[in-house]
Amino acid sequence: MILYSMPSSGNSYKVRLLLALLGHDKVPRSDVEYDSAALATAHREGRLPFGKAPVLMLEDGTALPESNAILCFLGEGTPFVPQDPVARAKMLSWMFWEQNQHEGVIAVRAALRNYAHRKPGATPERMSDLLTRGHALLQIMEDQLAQRDWLVGDSATLADLCLFAYTHSAGTLGGFDMDRFPAIRAWCARITTLPGYAALS
Amino acid sequence: MILYSMPSSGNSYKVRLLLALLGHDKVPRSDVEYDSAALATAHREGRLPFGKAPVLMLEDGTALPESNAILCFLGEGTPFVPQDPVARAKMLSWMFWEQNQHEGVIAVRAALRNYAHRKPGATPERMSDLLTRGHALLQIMEDQLAQRDWLVGDSATLADLCLFAYTHSAGTLGGFDMDRFPAIRAWCARITTLPGYAALS
Repeated sequence: MILYSMPSSGNSYKVRLLLALLGHDKVPRSDVEYDSAALATAHREGRLPFGKAPVLMLEDGTALPESNAILCFLGEGTPFVPQDPVARAKMLSWMFWEQNQHEGVIAVRAALRNYAHRKPGATPERMSDLLTRGHALLQIMEDQLAQRDWLVGDSATLADLCLFAYTHSAGTLGGFDMDRFPAIRAWCARITTLPGYAALS
Repeated sequence: MILYSMPSSGNSYKVRLLLALLGHDKVPRSDVEYDSAALATAHREGRLPFGKAPVLMLEDGTALPESNAILCFLGEGTPFVPQDPVARAKMLSWMFWEQNQHEGVIAVRAALRNYAHRKPGATPERMSDLLTRGHALLQIMEDQLAQRDWLVGDSATLADLCLFAYTHSAGTLGGFDMDRFPAIRAWCARITTLPGYAALS
């Protein structure tokens, strides 16, 4: 297997984090640059089927895109995927919500603040709207984590790992007010104590 | 089980379509209105955990949100979910891509054109940008479907059903030029011939 990974991307980090937690951090990595011409070439050549990273290239030549699909593939049969059908479904609910709602606000605001050269359009109105929407999304996580240590069940699942990727830097990179969310901050700290944990680097 | 479903929403339609194909169209439905006050109340009362439809309320009282997570829950063990791990992962790649990329462009442009009262912001620049991006996304599907009848494997999977929901109306509702995409049009026609198929209504 080879992981095509973008160093600064939370979506790529998710996969690197799961590999580290599984003790599979020897999977070779190929760093992908955030450069639209390079991405288009990689897409055309079949390395990045949807034109973005991460992609896990499997031994049979399959190029598997989408961070959360890669997590499901690598996580199946490990303690990070519950066996119970309802718990599995709840885990997937958080994962689809992460891609449909959370990433488009939390990660996008961070990108607009920190990578304006490659992500233009940070008008004051847009930044303010993203701040309000982001706080509402983080409140949904806070409400859940105020009642329990992990998003689903009694131990860390793929739902926690995928949401950690952009949430742990939502204050520093995204400018969200994390003082409002003590349960999220405690959950982030909890994740860093998992055996094998690797920080974004 | 009860399905909380929004009649005009493609995300809700996906679930109704799968239930019809599985012959489970007797699952009771409760229609959810697109009204922000009603959605906020339902969210507060625990019926819509992420504040949106669809939600499948299970017999044990679990409220399961996110259309694609509901598809996975209902589809497990049926012919719509492949057994092979790589095929399952590819199916999930398309499903996460649908929520992360496709829906935010294809469905959003349709909503801006048809439901301006509840989705403002249809500036000419935005509509033009969504058109360009939508055609690029549809081209990714076209490239795949020009080579094969179904997105993954040799028969319809959840990937086809979830992408059908907003793609089949991308021309009529979204204003996308579907004449460019003959393979997508053939695939849409193929889906309507599946036993039990139910149109959006």
